[in-house]
Amino acid sequence: MPTTTTFSGVIPPVVTPLTADGELDRASFERLITSQLDAGVHGLFVLGSSGEVAYLDDARRSQVMEAAVEITAGRVPVMAGVIDISTRRVEDQVRRAADAGVDAVVATAPLYIRTNDDEIERHFRGVAAASDLPLFAYDVPVCVHSKLDLGMLVRLGSEGVIAGVKDSSGDDVGFRRLVAANRAAGSPLRLFTGHEVVVDGMLLLGADGVVPGLGNVDPAGYVRLWDAAQAGDWAAARDEQDRLAALFEIVFQPRGYSGGASGLGAFKTSLQLLGVIGSNVMTTPAPALEGEVVDQIKVILAEAGLL
Amino acid sequence: MPTTTTFSGVIPPVVTPLTADGELDRASFERLITSQLDAGVHGLFVLGSSGEVAYLDDARRSQVMEAAVEITAGRVPVMAGVIDISTRRVEDQVRRAADAGVDAVVATAPLYIRTNDDEIERHFRGVAAASDLPLFAYDVPVCVHSKLDLGMLVRLGSEGVIAGVKDSSGDDVGFRRLVAANRAAGSPLRLFTGHEVVVDGMLLLGADGVVPGLGNVDPAGYVRLWDAAQAGDWAAARDEQDRLAALFEIVFQPRGYSGGASGLGAFKTSLQLLGVIGSNVMTTPAPALEGEVVDQIKVILAEAGLL
Amino acid sequence: MPTTTTFSGVIPPVVTPLTADGELDRASFERLITSQLDAGVHGLFVLGSSGEVAYLDDARRSQVMEAAVEITAGRVPVMAGVIDISTRRVEDQVRRAADAGVDAVVATAPLYIRTNDDEIERHFRGVAAASDLPLFAYDVPVCVHSKLDLGMLVRLGSEGVIAGVKDSSGDDVGFRRLVAANRAAGSPLRLFTGHEVVVDGMLLLGADGVVPGLGNVDPAGYVRLWDAAQAGDWAAARDEQDRLAALFEIVFQPRGYSGGASGLGAFKTSLQLLGVIGSNVMTTPAPALEGEVVDQIKVILAEAGLL
Amino acid sequence: MPTTTTFSGVIPPVVTPLTADGELDRASFERLITSQLDAGVHGLFVLGSSGEVAYLDDARRSQVMEAAVEITAGRVPVMAGVIDISTRRVEDQVRRAADAGVDAVVATAPLYIRTNDDEIERHFRGVAAASDLPLFAYDVPVCVHSKLDLGMLVRLGSEGVIAGVKDSSGDDVGFRRLVAANRAAGSPLRLFTGHEVVVDGMLLLGADGVVPGLGNVDPAGYVRLWDAAQAGDWAAARDEQDRLAALFEIVFQPRGYSGGASGLGAFKTSLQLLGVIGSNVMTTPAPALEGEVVDQIKVILAEAGLL
Repeated sequence: MPTTTTFSGVIPPVVTPLTADGELDRASFERLITSQLDAGVHGLFVLGSSGEVAYLDDARRSQVMEAAVEITAGRVPVMAGVIDISTRRVEDQVRRAADAGVDAVVATAPLYIRTNDDEIERHFRGVAAASDLPLFAYDVPVCVHSKLDLGMLVRLGSEGVIAGVKDSSGDDVGFRRLVAANRAAGSPLRLFTGHEVVVDGMLLLGADGVVPGLGNVDPAGYVRLWDAAQAGDWAAARDEQDRLAALFEIVFQPRGYSGGASGLGAFKTSLQLLGVIGSNVMTTPAPALEGEVVDQIKVILAEAGLL
Repeated sequence: MPTTTTFSGVIPPVVTPLTADGELDRASFERLITSQLDAGVHGLFVLGSSGEVAYLDDARRSQVMEAAVEITAGRVPVMAGVIDISTRRVEDQVRRAADAGVDAVVATAPLYIRTNDDEIERHFRGVAAASDLPLFAYDVPVCVHSKLDLGMLVRLGSEGVIAGVKDSSGDDVGFRRLVAANRAAGSPLRLFTGHEVVVDGMLLLGADGVVPGLGNVDPAGYVRLWDAAQAGDWAAARDEQDRLAALFEIVFQPRGYSGGASGLGAFKTSLQLLGVIGSNVMTTPAPALEGEVVDQIKVILAEAGLL
Repeated sequence: MPTTTTFSGVIPPVVTPLTADGELDRASFERLITSQLDAGVHGLFVLGSSGEVAYLDDARRSQVMEAAVEITAGRVPVMAGVIDISTRRVEDQVRRAADAGVDAVVATAPLYIRTNDDEIERHFRGVAAASDLPLFAYDVPVCVHSKLDLGMLVRLGSEGVIAGVKDSSGDDVGFRRLVAANRAAGSPLRLFTGHEVVVDGMLLLGADGVVPGLGNVDPAGYVRLWDAAQAGDWAAARDEQDRLAALFEIVFQPRGYSGGASGLGAFKTSLQLLGVIGSNVMTTPAPALEGEVVDQIKVILAEAGLL
Repeated sequence: MPTTTTFSGVIPPVVTPLTADGELDRASFERLITSQLDAGVHGLFVLGSSGEVAYLDDARRSQVMEAAVEITAGRVPVMAGVIDISTRRVEDQVRRAADAGVDAVVATAPLYIRTNDDEIERHFRGVAAASDLPLFAYDVPVCVHSKLDLGMLVRLGSEGVIAGVKDSSGDDVGFRRLVAANRAAGSPLRLFTGHEVVVDGMLLLGADGVVPGLGNVDPAGYVRLWDAAQAGDWAAARDEQDRLAALFEIVFQPRGYSGGASGLGAFKTSLQLLGVIGSNVMTTPAPALEGEVVDQIKVILAEAGLL
């Protein structure tokens, strides 16, 4: 079983390839994971936002986790999102994840409920107690509509309740404060940035890893960025990040699609164009990208040297 | 099976009484439902926000629905909330509700996902297709973080996809526009207000029913308000509403509790003080109200003539 | 000078008619105010949101106030908005309003600044001290991005700091609570609703007056609604409100315009179509409505019996 | 007169020292500006958010600009905030700034008004036309409640309407995209970050300058950070930034103060403790920090080596 320190580096939130009728496309999933491992990623995160976790029913969630564990075969740790509305329901998801054999779970604060800091802390304590798996707190206010408190995160880390944080809050002040507070507490937490385009800056200030949705499309680029940062070659890290930031423009091409369908759709469409997965279909109610936007994405992939 | 027009009048969103260890307190639930029916309510809505739907796991959700159906025994229609993150997951909830024998289901737009109007419409079409039960759209932006589009609601009503709307949006302009647009379309929708304290005004402008959380505590008051409105005695309706609005101050007494725990906690605490349910315990992570606030609630219940 | 109780009934927030080059169109303004007075309104509110206060410079603001005072000639009280960023700046506006001879001023909480309840209370105390004019607090979160605290309003009323509240918050629960708390305190405050389409319900629950932007277009309709409510004929009030709500659809016709330009533009365009003002031009950066939307508004005016 | 390229490097948003009765404390202002120039800053920004622009009346705003121009005596460029509600009013502010002799002006999108992208663009065109001074667009959604559009900014830059952008949006993805789009357009814009604690990362990705409120307290630190970045010594830049981030904890010490009073109050209190300004008093309604929090700030200043 991985130790906490195992969790670092580039850990892409893997998309879930689907067949035309909405079933897991196992062959595509294997190609995708293999391409990630060949590129040198340090871990995999299934059932994240990029993995369509919010859209999938329980049966498909289990299929995804089981397939990922089997395909990865222990070469890197596999983390899994356990996204549900509230404590009791997330606990159920944790038990399903443990059954599937993943190495760690990633949970948000409660959804839907008008909650507060005390309840969020009690929530994470409950979720952590539901299994022996390391628990990462996922801070994504754009989806959850609350922000995780800095003091709570460090406290839960110091007590061994959570093993780390995936920060997709877009609050860079908060992230630097979290890095400093974690360091002052003896670094109990592994701190990941969930963003794609200021990863150089986040690694410069002390992030332990990165979970970029765009890493589905160009895992080798993020591994080069990580390696440059590890070597202290910040100019090289910046240049690689600039290239990846230009590639990230794929998510801004869709017009008239929802935020979810645009981002996730751009990743899936790119992977289809690159021949990694068989289809860019998504789970209802999200439509697959089609028409002109596919050509626009193709141009960007070519400019980034991927096509 | 109820016709669509069956759904009108006072339909309280019934709380879920729990034992100290978080199990459904069946005896309390029976007393609660019986007190509602004795007061003359016209329907029951289980697994709404007041029913702790967001906190309960699937097993307990089914227990609640089955118990409500059994206790009610067809005397009034039983509606059930089918709250989950997205289409496929809500469809599963709908099937569970149908298995439990309820008379209608109530669903929100997707949670967590950054969605748009097209996806929300596709979502409701998917959910409706999962069973033969009448489907009500639940508009509660404070929890879901999106607002249901007026044009979509009337369109889905006219096509028979949804049977009605439970409006907890607090947008009274929007609600009056919805009432007018529905009337212009031949009134395919049953329109309920989910609010507690301007029910007189909402009935005056044409609401078909009311789903007040406070109706747990004083169902007879809302029935009197409804009857006065039906009789066109708006001064009497207003006076009853003023009394109920004073009673509603129970939800503003808690200090340091979350919004969810304050409102729901005030209802459960009142029901315990009135001897209807055995305990005010709630599902983790929400704490039960305790201490001084219980005394403050007791005073308000007494002033309202309930204690 | 008006007493506080003078302020009640229908008090339209008068638009500011402009010439093509952005100057006050004095002749149009006189026709507009005269049409309001002929319709029986009980007061006038200049330099409200509908009066383009946010767009006008200080010189034009003074012209508007002076013209309104002169044209009205004491027949009804004239209230004026004193909208600016913070206390010292609003105090300057109050002094200019006093110089212009208006009967009361209407101020919001500070703009732009990240403030809190204590600062907002201190702000209103400072603004009130800047003149002897009655001060009304204007609660309009959609513009100010903060909500006025209920307890503060009643406290400031009881101490004679503010004379009333213009509530454009859209929070009907909050408004009913404010009405109840004011009554319990001996009714020191005059409470106006700033909304257009649930005025029947707001009068039913105890509002002292209404400040409807739509009252520019159909003042006689709001006077009829007010009179019906005063007579306790709520069915008549509701029917008149239904008619006015249908008329209010003018503000939802513009496509591709900002929220500000849509609402205000619909009022000005209607008044131009009705021959009351000479032009629907607005202050930069808001564009005047033009093209197809003008025809759509014309149809609605005709359906409402105004054209 | 400065050329556009003059505007780069460290440009602190200078606080406005006040006497106990709210007048500009000219002697303190001179000490403050002199300390900034001695530390090697590359420009000064008066009447920014840190300069209490939102609180000051027009007379005091003019005094601040005139004093800054006189004290600086051309050694570095002086930029001035021209914050007001809408176009016509901001144009007035621009003319006052030009009269005072500043070198550039900084304006936001309209406040209070429900506006849109077209109106915001027209607004900046109007403001730019009011003088010959270079105009910088100030993007601060936490105060203005709208976000400036990337395409508009580059378009206005390419046409010479605006000279640059002060980005206090906290949207690091947006800022990197803006840097890339500006570069692709031939770099017409000078791009400043308004943040304090990820300046190393923002310089790494290509910011032209930094406008840190904390630069009031430790201008030499930001100059060292800037110099390290210019030299490509990113490890040194990061270490200096870490030190400054620890110092920035002063703004998180106040409890029970507003966001505005906390941040600005911490800067003024620090400057008073450091003997640079005579008092930490602020303009009503913001209270000066007092009591325990002053001691907490003193400790942090000492830990940062400033006391």
